Amino acid sequence: MTKQAKVAILGATGFTGEKLVEILLSHPNVEIVYLSSRTEAPIPYSKLFPRFKGKTTLNCEPLDVKKAIGLADILFLSLPHTVSMDFVPGVLKAGKRVVDLSADYRLNASLYEKYYKMTHKDVDNLKKAAYGSPELFKTKIEKALLVANPGCYPTSVILALYPLLKEGILENKIIVDSKSAITGAGRKAVIDYHYSNISNNIWAYKPFVHQHVPEMVEILKAATTVAMDLIFTPQVIGVEAGIYSTIYVSFKKAVSEETVSAVYKKYYKNCPFVRLMPALPKLKDVVGTNFCDIGFAIDEKKKNAVIASAIDNLIKGAAGQAVQNMNLMLGFSETTGLL
Amino acid sequence: MTKQAKVAILGATGFTGEKLVEILLSHPNVEIVYLSSRTEAPIPYSKLFPRFKGKTTLNCEPLDVKKAIGLADILFLSLPHTVSMDFVPGVLKAGKRVVDLSADYRLNASLYEKYYKMTHKDVDNLKKAAYGSPELFKTKIEKALLVANPGCYPTSVILALYPLLKEGILENKIIVDSKSAITGAGRKAVIDYHYSNISNNIWAYKPFVHQHVPEMVEILKAATTVAMDLIFTPQVIGVEAGIYSTIYVSFKKAVSEETVSAVYKKYYKNCPFVRLMPALPKLKDVVGTNFCDIGFAIDEKKKNAVIASAIDNLIKGAAGQAVQNMNLMLGFSETTGLL
Amino acid sequence: MTKQAKVAILGATGFTGEKLVEILLSHPNVEIVYLSSRTEAPIPYSKLFPRFKGKTTLNCEPLDVKKAIGLADILFLSLPHTVSMDFVPGVLKAGKRVVDLSADYRLNASLYEKYYKMTHKDVDNLKKAAYGSPELFKTKIEKALLVANPGCYPTSVILALYPLLKEGILENKIIVDSKSAITGAGRKAVIDYHYSNISNNIWAYKPFVHQHVPEMVEILKAATTVAMDLIFTPQVIGVEAGIYSTIYVSFKKAVSEETVSAVYKKYYKNCPFVRLMPALPKLKDVVGTNFCDIGFAIDEKKKNAVIASAIDNLIKGAAGQAVQNMNLMLGFSETTGLL
Amino acid sequence: MTKQAKVAILGATGFTGEKLVEILLSHPNVEIVYLSSRTEAPIPYSKLFPRFKGKTTLNCEPLDVKKAIGLADILFLSLPHTVSMDFVPGVLKAGKRVVDLSADYRLNASLYEKYYKMTHKDVDNLKKAAYGSPELFKTKIEKALLVANPGCYPTSVILALYPLLKEGILENKIIVDSKSAITGAGRKAVIDYHYSNISNNIWAYKPFVHQHVPEMVEILKAATTVAMDLIFTPQVIGVEAGIYSTIYVSFKKAVSEETVSAVYKKYYKNCPFVRLMPALPKLKDVVGTNFCDIGFAIDEKKKNAVIASAIDNLIKGAAGQAVQNMNLMLGFSETTGLL
Repeated sequence: MTKQAKVAILGATGFTGEKLVEILLSHPNVEIVYLSSRTEAPIPYSKLFPRFKGKTTLNCEPLDVKKAIGLADILFLSLPHTVSMDFVPGVLKAGKRVVDLSADYRLNASLYEKYYKMTHKDVDNLKKAAYGSPELFKTKIEKALLVANPGCYPTSVILALYPLLKEGILENKIIVDSKSAITGAGRKAVIDYHYSNISNNIWAYKPFVHQHVPEMVEILKAATTVAMDLIFTPQVIGVEAGIYSTIYVSFKKAVSEETVSAVYKKYYKNCPFVRLMPALPKLKDVVGTNFCDIGFAIDEKKKNAVIASAIDNLIKGAAGQAVQNMNLMLGFSETTGLL
Repeated sequence: MTKQAKVAILGATGFTGEKLVEILLSHPNVEIVYLSSRTEAPIPYSKLFPRFKGKTTLNCEPLDVKKAIGLADILFLSLPHTVSMDFVPGVLKAGKRVVDLSADYRLNASLYEKYYKMTHKDVDNLKKAAYGSPELFKTKIEKALLVANPGCYPTSVILALYPLLKEGILENKIIVDSKSAITGAGRKAVIDYHYSNISNNIWAYKPFVHQHVPEMVEILKAATTVAMDLIFTPQVIGVEAGIYSTIYVSFKKAVSEETVSAVYKKYYKNCPFVRLMPALPKLKDVVGTNFCDIGFAIDEKKKNAVIASAIDNLIKGAAGQAVQNMNLMLGFSETTGLL
Repeated sequence: MTKQAKVAILGATGFTGEKLVEILLSHPNVEIVYLSSRTEAPIPYSKLFPRFKGKTTLNCEPLDVKKAIGLADILFLSLPHTVSMDFVPGVLKAGKRVVDLSADYRLNASLYEKYYKMTHKDVDNLKKAAYGSPELFKTKIEKALLVANPGCYPTSVILALYPLLKEGILENKIIVDSKSAITGAGRKAVIDYHYSNISNNIWAYKPFVHQHVPEMVEILKAATTVAMDLIFTPQVIGVEAGIYSTIYVSFKKAVSEETVSAVYKKYYKNCPFVRLMPALPKLKDVVGTNFCDIGFAIDEKKKNAVIASAIDNLIKGAAGQAVQNMNLMLGFSETTGLL
Repeated sequence: MTKQAKVAILGATGFTGEKLVEILLSHPNVEIVYLSSRTEAPIPYSKLFPRFKGKTTLNCEPLDVKKAIGLADILFLSLPHTVSMDFVPGVLKAGKRVVDLSADYRLNASLYEKYYKMTHKDVDNLKKAAYGSPELFKTKIEKALLVANPGCYPTSVILALYPLLKEGILENKIIVDSKSAITGAGRKAVIDYHYSNISNNIWAYKPFVHQHVPEMVEILKAATTVAMDLIFTPQVIGVEAGIYSTIYVSFKKAVSEETVSAVYKKYYKNCPFVRLMPALPKLKDVVGTNFCDIGFAIDEKKKNAVIASAIDNLIKGAAGQAVQNMNLMLGFSETTGLL
């Protein structure tokens, strides 16, 4: 079978880039034609990551956007925040598609400036970008030339909350207590990520002010008329992969489990990667997959609920969702290469 | 130096019992004179736990309360819930002291019946028992013959909340998101505790209905006039030891960090095992110690706070706190054998 | 595309059975038609293992060999040792193929009796069984009706040693120091496999007498004329998956790295799942794959070598290799469903 | 009680330095009077390591040897290799004692140059230094002004082999397969020590040529007349602490278990930190302690043995043994502060 599309991955040696390579290598409809990193000279990708030996003979090359544009139909940008927006205009001008995994096209210009301390340089395309949450914005993504792939924490939180907010059954105060693998912070040689600091540890960081908060709030705000009051605490836990978000909500009036289940089913009945679980989920059931598992429990008074959602932070929270978006953009079946 | 007290540990082979042995063996003022477990015949403790080889030649014996009473001045009961109350009356009648690490003397009789599905058999002593939270009830513990050692989750939660509630600055709704090592569930051969189920995993369980909720609520209720609405979600994480509780509160009126710090300092200034940290704490800083580390952050509006408290679940959450209680009961310095 | 073969898995709830289900569900040429376990009534497999929700609607049923024979073309027996041989004769008589993952068809009858303390009940088929090491016995496996899938330790050891022994360049004394995930011991609720016993631990067990020794020796003996003196020490380490075997050999006369590399390449040039690495391998590069990575180093005198081989114990060491064998037996490409 | 000695720790922020602080803070006979690190200005030690909050108010200062000499009776040098020898002459000249935890005084000058690629700058003191293995060289250590604290791997290997070699019962070929926590490599921000590279991984490195080989060989050589042929393979495993050495030896003539046990008992009968275990040891039994656990098994022919020895790499393999040496040098009981 002829591969139907050619893809490039810019930034192929971060955790997310590596996961993109892994997924796309076994994707039946696409061929990877270009990989780049901060290397100074081309080097076999399997030399950088021996686990790819026997699976690809591709080289990883110094970043050359023009070359990538020349070779590929669609480019995955797995670059640091504030770098992507230097490249996106050129790629789109050349008529190629982009899935951007940085934060550059997720927030409006003023929030971007507030949280990333930099004026946005590509406001035109920012306005046109589709937010890459396929369960919520499928139609827009299918037509998009530029998709802003969601952040990892927002993915887990938005999928859990959107249906309930859209149905208007929640009070405005929402508490989100998220726990993530350290890989979400990128492949960096810092002492805080040393094995002995992560193993057997857990700690909360950036309370109230994490840069993913405006992303969650902006997307969720569109679903609701209440003035949401969302408190978010990210935490690092000693797992290799995954995000587990425990979310506390109250209902405007008493609801039954059946009602809440029905809401989720209404929104996700055609969503192959969201699973409504019969109980609070376990992180490990989604590790290595593109699933988002959601479960919930309601208290005696039927007024409060705890919702838990679990994803693999590098798959549904990054590379897997990016491929899901690509599938939609290129007209492939949504699950291709992901199940 | 002559050892000043003789201690017995009933139930010496659970995680908590083993930790008691470890701590008490190096306690300068006491001598362990009796260890029991479900064994059928006496067996060297270091044969059951080779790590004690060279540290003790004590035998672990089939449970014989009379023998323990005969030998010891104070008994630690590290027995299953509903078993302790069979033994406590006899021990007290013989004039010996008890630190009970089960839940049998923590709740009033009606709550006990509701959560442990059994009528309480020793209501007289239940009424006299001191709740073993030395930071809050030191005077009562010093005089007590029977101390009910707190549960692990309640220890981490009560210490974080008591001062703020007592000062009357909190709104009534409180969310507690706790994460615990699996050792809190006891040394049991069940498949859910298999290495491959715990490593790299996290899951929430018993939302709203965990048996530690009434314990927290009863103790905290005494500190406040508001009708507390406390939601508690326990979670298992893949760490060897520890509980990390992330707690969400709102203030009746805006407060500064200084105010909150001052409240904690007021209550804990003479408490050697509570440390107010300059930032949200890390679990690992308390593992292997009897400390409870507390940190907090306040949002922009100065109306909401996230508080995190960290303890070693088997030490400050069980055996360490039990020894701290013993120190007070026997007139030793509070920190003896624990720093 | 029509699935070309129907498969049954007997014993689908052990670690190996679960991995078989995972691999075969995404295998493009086969359809799982039957799953059994010790359940008393049929139960959805995804209820037993929630991670399969959305991936299969199959039930797991009480074991009924006749039903399995009736439905499937090939049966995977992932049953306890000494149980498989009760079923194999009937399956073969019905003209169906078998991949047996127990030890029942790996050893000759007298070794079997010595190590498994039971007289072999199916010596006829034992003699006809192919040893399922595709890199060594491909032709025999392609024609076999019954394949004895190798043990996990033997897979890692045999692949590392066979070429060197066959070329006759090794001295007879060989030391094998292997480290394995605890999953190799099966999904059992025993206290030794509790998270707190495995995490951060390592220990050696069954020195000299492990039941996998005769399996290694029998297969390797066929490659050599020297009277091998093989010492094997298995060890449990706190990893979720994998076996890492460090092997110490001496050469009859001095050899170069090039010579040794050439030997491995000669034997494995057409073997897609054996990778000769440029350095000593890392376990993690094979976890989640069917690869066996082999690396080696030679000392200054060119007389001694340390060889390390790494596999995923449940994949190349069990379920993956079983599927690789099935691929050969059914005439599929060797790598189908495994790359 | 008046503290009897004042100690300084130079290099107090590495893993070993931190462990020294921990042990010495609770040592009843000494007082820490000086801590240094690469800091530019004095900073509270508990600010660098919050776990020490409430346990010490000491500052960590920029390195000033003269100040340390002025304040302390004995200096622990936990400095990088090749740095210690710059300071040792001055310290000794000032009449102060030194326990050097680097490799600078472990090897003779020519081996030092070969393995550390630097001419030794303090050959005079090198010749006088005592090798700090208290079980073997107690008398010499008691009189020493300068003790070279052993390497972590050598500690585990030498203790397991010395008695058997000294008794002359071993063949000359010895295989040592060691597994270590990554903390042995020092607190360094390198990507190889990132949590995701260590967790669930194991790999062998520096086969045949590790710098600890000459240390083992030199010490063991003194015990034997045979020309030892020792092969050593270090391996990194995903544990927080510990070294587990699996050692393969052959006997000149058949021996019984009793004989081997008797040999170990002869040498270690007065050694409180060496435990001869009834079976192959488990790493976790020594973690957090200064013990070295040794166990062994002999094959059917009584000609080969596998010996396993386990230590905590930062305690018996570094800081604990250093304190044990200090105890001997200062005339304290050997176990003070360590049991």
